[in-house]
Amino acid sequence: MIFELSERTKDYQKRLIEFMERYIYPNEKLYEEQLNEYDRFSEVPLIIEDLKKKAKSQGLWNLFLTDRKYGAGLTNLEYAFLCEIMGRSSIAPEVFNCSAPDTGNMEVLVQYGTEEQKEKWLKPLLNGEIRSCFSMTEPDVASSDATNIRASIVRDGDEYVINGTKWWSSGAADPRCKIAIVMGKTDPTGPKYKQQSMILVPLDTPGVTIKRVLTVFGYDHAPHGHAEIEFRNVRVPASNILLGEGRGFEIAQGRLGPGRIHHCMRSIGAAERALEILCTRVQERETFGKKLADQGVIQEWIANSRIEIEQARLLTLKAAHMMDTVGNKEARAEIAMIKVVAPNVALKVLDRAIQTLGAAGVSQDYPLAAMFANIRTLRIADGPDEVHKRTVARLELKKYAELEKVRR
Amino acid sequence: MIFELSERTKDYQKRLIEFMERYIYPNEKLYEEQLNEYDRFSEVPLIIEDLKKKAKSQGLWNLFLTDRKYGAGLTNLEYAFLCEIMGRSSIAPEVFNCSAPDTGNMEVLVQYGTEEQKEKWLKPLLNGEIRSCFSMTEPDVASSDATNIRASIVRDGDEYVINGTKWWSSGAADPRCKIAIVMGKTDPTGPKYKQQSMILVPLDTPGVTIKRVLTVFGYDHAPHGHAEIEFRNVRVPASNILLGEGRGFEIAQGRLGPGRIHHCMRSIGAAERALEILCTRVQERETFGKKLADQGVIQEWIANSRIEIEQARLLTLKAAHMMDTVGNKEARAEIAMIKVVAPNVALKVLDRAIQTLGAAGVSQDYPLAAMFANIRTLRIADGPDEVHKRTVARLELKKYAELEKVRR
Amino acid sequence: MIFELSERTKDYQKRLIEFMERYIYPNEKLYEEQLNEYDRFSEVPLIIEDLKKKAKSQGLWNLFLTDRKYGAGLTNLEYAFLCEIMGRSSIAPEVFNCSAPDTGNMEVLVQYGTEEQKEKWLKPLLNGEIRSCFSMTEPDVASSDATNIRASIVRDGDEYVINGTKWWSSGAADPRCKIAIVMGKTDPTGPKYKQQSMILVPLDTPGVTIKRVLTVFGYDHAPHGHAEIEFRNVRVPASNILLGEGRGFEIAQGRLGPGRIHHCMRSIGAAERALEILCTRVQERETFGKKLADQGVIQEWIANSRIEIEQARLLTLKAAHMMDTVGNKEARAEIAMIKVVAPNVALKVLDRAIQTLGAAGVSQDYPLAAMFANIRTLRIADGPDEVHKRTVARLELKKYAELEKVRR
Amino acid sequence: MIFELSERTKDYQKRLIEFMERYIYPNEKLYEEQLNEYDRFSEVPLIIEDLKKKAKSQGLWNLFLTDRKYGAGLTNLEYAFLCEIMGRSSIAPEVFNCSAPDTGNMEVLVQYGTEEQKEKWLKPLLNGEIRSCFSMTEPDVASSDATNIRASIVRDGDEYVINGTKWWSSGAADPRCKIAIVMGKTDPTGPKYKQQSMILVPLDTPGVTIKRVLTVFGYDHAPHGHAEIEFRNVRVPASNILLGEGRGFEIAQGRLGPGRIHHCMRSIGAAERALEILCTRVQERETFGKKLADQGVIQEWIANSRIEIEQARLLTLKAAHMMDTVGNKEARAEIAMIKVVAPNVALKVLDRAIQTLGAAGVSQDYPLAAMFANIRTLRIADGPDEVHKRTVARLELKKYAELEKVRR
Repeated sequence: MIFELSERTKDYQKRLIEFMERYIYPNEKLYEEQLNEYDRFSEVPLIIEDLKKKAKSQGLWNLFLTDRKYGAGLTNLEYAFLCEIMGRSSIAPEVFNCSAPDTGNMEVLVQYGTEEQKEKWLKPLLNGEIRSCFSMTEPDVASSDATNIRASIVRDGDEYVINGTKWWSSGAADPRCKIAIVMGKTDPTGPKYKQQSMILVPLDTPGVTIKRVLTVFGYDHAPHGHAEIEFRNVRVPASNILLGEGRGFEIAQGRLGPGRIHHCMRSIGAAERALEILCTRVQERETFGKKLADQGVIQEWIANSRIEIEQARLLTLKAAHMMDTVGNKEARAEIAMIKVVAPNVALKVLDRAIQTLGAAGVSQDYPLAAMFANIRTLRIADGPDEVHKRTVARLELKKYAELEKVRR
Repeated sequence: MIFELSERTKDYQKRLIEFMERYIYPNEKLYEEQLNEYDRFSEVPLIIEDLKKKAKSQGLWNLFLTDRKYGAGLTNLEYAFLCEIMGRSSIAPEVFNCSAPDTGNMEVLVQYGTEEQKEKWLKPLLNGEIRSCFSMTEPDVASSDATNIRASIVRDGDEYVINGTKWWSSGAADPRCKIAIVMGKTDPTGPKYKQQSMILVPLDTPGVTIKRVLTVFGYDHAPHGHAEIEFRNVRVPASNILLGEGRGFEIAQGRLGPGRIHHCMRSIGAAERALEILCTRVQERETFGKKLADQGVIQEWIANSRIEIEQARLLTLKAAHMMDTVGNKEARAEIAMIKVVAPNVALKVLDRAIQTLGAAGVSQDYPLAAMFANIRTLRIADGPDEVHKRTVARLELKKYAELEKVRR
Repeated sequence: MIFELSERTKDYQKRLIEFMERYIYPNEKLYEEQLNEYDRFSEVPLIIEDLKKKAKSQGLWNLFLTDRKYGAGLTNLEYAFLCEIMGRSSIAPEVFNCSAPDTGNMEVLVQYGTEEQKEKWLKPLLNGEIRSCFSMTEPDVASSDATNIRASIVRDGDEYVINGTKWWSSGAADPRCKIAIVMGKTDPTGPKYKQQSMILVPLDTPGVTIKRVLTVFGYDHAPHGHAEIEFRNVRVPASNILLGEGRGFEIAQGRLGPGRIHHCMRSIGAAERALEILCTRVQERETFGKKLADQGVIQEWIANSRIEIEQARLLTLKAAHMMDTVGNKEARAEIAMIKVVAPNVALKVLDRAIQTLGAAGVSQDYPLAAMFANIRTLRIADGPDEVHKRTVARLELKKYAELEKVRR
Repeated sequence: MIFELSERTKDYQKRLIEFMERYIYPNEKLYEEQLNEYDRFSEVPLIIEDLKKKAKSQGLWNLFLTDRKYGAGLTNLEYAFLCEIMGRSSIAPEVFNCSAPDTGNMEVLVQYGTEEQKEKWLKPLLNGEIRSCFSMTEPDVASSDATNIRASIVRDGDEYVINGTKWWSSGAADPRCKIAIVMGKTDPTGPKYKQQSMILVPLDTPGVTIKRVLTVFGYDHAPHGHAEIEFRNVRVPASNILLGEGRGFEIAQGRLGPGRIHHCMRSIGAAERALEILCTRVQERETFGKKLADQGVIQEWIANSRIEIEQARLLTLKAAHMMDTVGNKEARAEIAMIKVVAPNVALKVLDRAIQTLGAAGVSQDYPLAAMFANIRTLRIADGPDEVHKRTVARLELKKYAELEKVRR
């Protein structure tokens, strides 16, 4: 690699790979089985808590947190390499306490939380004792433009009263999920980017109702679950507000950067896993008197996959490196680019792997279809591809507008 | 349209569209709800039997059968127009007794069945009293090359003994499914295309075990279900053989033609539904101060979708027309082409609709994700895209090889 | 084919194919050689006039004209089949007096010309004695939006005075080119679609200067030539106006329909020629111990090409048929679609053929690169792809807007 | 950038950019004009020799040579950044004595030439006094598999006798071209990769005939010119052999690595220029009442272009860095990947820029069409895309074959 890794990162890398080989891959099927033993949302598969304990004891825990006080203190670039490895299995991120949306929520609490908020919610999250959700998207508006969001957060004495319906509150169906970060309007008539705030809402607060769980393609993603939640006259202490009224957009921006690197690197990890499955399979099967591996079209798929993965990874690493060195703002074109590139590349590789495996590929026998469904949502979540491309285009056009000004 | 439809077909078309509007679309949700009331595979949603009765009483029944004695006696071209309409809802084909794999199995029985076989299996299938499955694909070999199939069918006195494991026997999990057409080798050392036979195996025969149901992306496709079936020393009367030993490939060929038209036209129907959903939605939603319908990228998607659908439909109609006029053999290039084109076009349109709807698009709130998963399997079933392209290429190359011969 | 051809069309088809084989293909190289004997724009290759005489004597002449009085009186659909054949060679259309822009200009004169205009310009054009050009596009504005065009046509007594600069006046450099149809504003402040008029301007009128010839990729397209023409106080009799002041858009609309069918069918003819070259070549050459024809990726290209060509042809034929039966206005979505589809398909097939032939493909040894350059301009001329897609999208959206109205 | 550039490279970079702005871009048109003053192949535009003198005097000369004794001694990675800048204008590389095929030929002479060979040919090449060509490809065989090459090089006493026909000997038509490196078989029956040798052949040797110049999409690429050369009983001293008999493949391998980086970085430079032209133009033009820059589809093109360029550049830089650090052999997958990626990306960006500019884009008024034609050949030269993808696929498959071995 062109990026020289620190010894510490290399050590984490080595240990993570070993952990995956030894504990993660062999337990993927068991996880599914345990999930099906009960109603899929009432119990958490035991194996996951076992594995969490093991990972924690080995120090493979909270690696995502760049803040040394609370986490591993790795740079975004360093963690990127580790995050890719975790992305190879859908059960892995949680095992290392590095799964969304908890990661983003913990980052928010570290960065913007009061000491009281940290004590109450960050601590158990860091310990992997509870889980959390992020309630932003709403069913009735095009949330890809976040100014459309219209849940209300109204101050009433020492409390805030929350009303609105959110959906795609991922993780909210998990019995361990205790807290939501909710976005809504505190000042509907204020300046466009100052109307929204974020507030902490314990899920057991009266008026909070989980209406149903949304499916992703056919997956219910139990026990996690993407929930539709109704907030009806929900009252929380005023101290639950994050950072202050009207700071919702600011927090949303800060929250997004690292999360995008994570999503992208996990997508790349998934793509690598798919390519491994594809390459292994084609060396075993024959059609029309010829190994699949020797067929030109298959080789074309393999080459295209390798070429696309390499490029997506390099761009993501560059974005991570820029975040570490020049900051999120300078890196916003790159962050927008990878948000488009990485999931799309992963989907292409997954699709080729599915096609190569045939019917097995769409089934539960391989992780491919589940990964496809999961990553397909990334082209939509946190802004659809089209919004990010618009950002890239505008930044690009600006360069030449300025260039023209200079030249004339 | 460039194809002049007969008055009779136009009448069917009109009545089908009305039936869809009045009974099918409004009941899609109810179907899902009824399915979730019990274990998804033990009971069939009541609504489906209601709707079947209604369709049957209106003569919208067995329209697919080109044989006038048993069905509507429409040409493939005529039925193609009707089949597209049914493809707009995943619950529709069954309502009109026009759903796979029953359609293909009924065609086989009409064409190759003895009077006894017809009486016993075709009749209840035509009446919609039972359902059937087709057991060809095997988990352990690359079935895209059907010569790889290795279940054994061994004559033993007045009986055949069947051994092997099949999967993707779609519909086998349905409590109404009573009969399987099984493909296997009667003569493993014979000439390559004479080794395989097809035989009728009642599902309640001792030794037949449904091992599990495969998922498609996350969908279990209950109550239909894609089953893995074990056949262990299964004995059936020798008279259950279809057409005779070694005729398996011949039947498989004959079975495929019309089925491909059906799959393709239904895919086109699904694409039309997706485009309708997309076009309706974008006229309702706004982002960044602008209706989605007015955004250039959305318009590009709509135009590309319309262009691709039109072309795919025309090619499919041409293939159907050729089947009706010059026969399956002459039409084999066209049949291979549409098998590639139609599902791929539908997937593209569905993907655009999903992207336009955002998170709603991948969920149970719209039929898009389910259609996507379903149609994704068509790029694999009955031979993957790549096998069909190979067929097209070889037929094309042959033209010029012959041309060269003539010219020299 | 699904379209039953009339005996008359079949006869033309047969004779055209023979003419191509016997006279056109064998003379393509000679044409190039004769062109290089002199300054490429001062002399017309003799062979072309020879071939024109031959074609005319065989009645293969003016086949494009649907008007029986002046031409063959074939329907657009019938001529489409013939036009495809001509498209297989870049020298063919002129030989049959069926080449742009003369065809469009003759159609305009037939439809909108006065008897005097017909006598003076249509007659020699029909006889192949002179050639013509169409001066619409301007260098200084985005002409893809024709309302931007700003040449002025000002009435002054019995004359009109024309001022402006046009470019891409194709054919104007040909020594035989005598007449231009010029579009410009007669009423710059009138209603948007009534400002423009069309007028006949003999190229030898004082004030008309051919400034230079534009190249298409590296081709000068001699002796035809895409000219930049300056019109400076050019005076022509008032009777030279076509149809009347403010009718420019109306004529432009009427002119475009058949021309698009022609361009599209010729593109498909070019694609067929490319596919023939590809398929012939791969049966002759070997790499890595294997015939190119046996390599999977080559087969994929062949299959994709065949599939794309078939679909593009069907859609173009449908558009032609609609023009013949329900008229240009009803067919405007289809006409917009084929304008996008056919050139893009041809470019893809040509690109694959070039890639297959290697360096030979980009050179003068094969017609591929020249066809590519030529057809590449069709994605721009008469409105870029994007404008046509916009049209398709708007018509599509309108359907559902109306549907919604009805349903509510 | 994630790659820290040395101060020396940054200085070169700055000076090169200034030189381009000041001397190269403003003289592109003049170059074309001077070329057209005479027969395009008999005289070299005077401006080019002026600019060469200027560049040489500023030390912007032979920057490509990693060997410090003869050139700038930059690493491949360092030069990559400079090479991209030169790629922005088709006249630039020659100005800095960094143009193909001279660069590759100089590298060969530096690495494998005898002192005598260096004195005679390397020296004037380094001084920019003469030019050279590389004669490998043959018209009658598929040269993408170099073992097919069949020109003969036969030892006869103190001489070698060369017979064969080569084409695409680029640069051979230039009046300054004095020397060819010719590849051919010295041992037609030897082991496959030992049959070929390379030999120096002065172009004025009796028996060497330039038969004609091949065009690239209409461009003759004067005065450079892609020549077809006949070698008929051409006799050169035995000392003209390079490295020794049977070493042809070895030299070809060594020659290719840096050349690929150059081609790729120049392609990226061309893509950047195209994107600049596009972005500038769309801020100036309007259609349908809206700036092109504000249209969604245009923004999509800009974003896709930026995203693709970024990724292609990173991968090329990685490949260059690997060549510098772990060597060409270890980098062969990456070198194969960029050979596919960079030209394809550049073609896509160029095509979008052409489409955006409309007819101007395909003409001589902008460098776009010429760049497109030029870069299109890179998908063929030095092995077509398909051969490189095959290499990538095989290396990938090998990883997993080994992995499997280890795991079992």
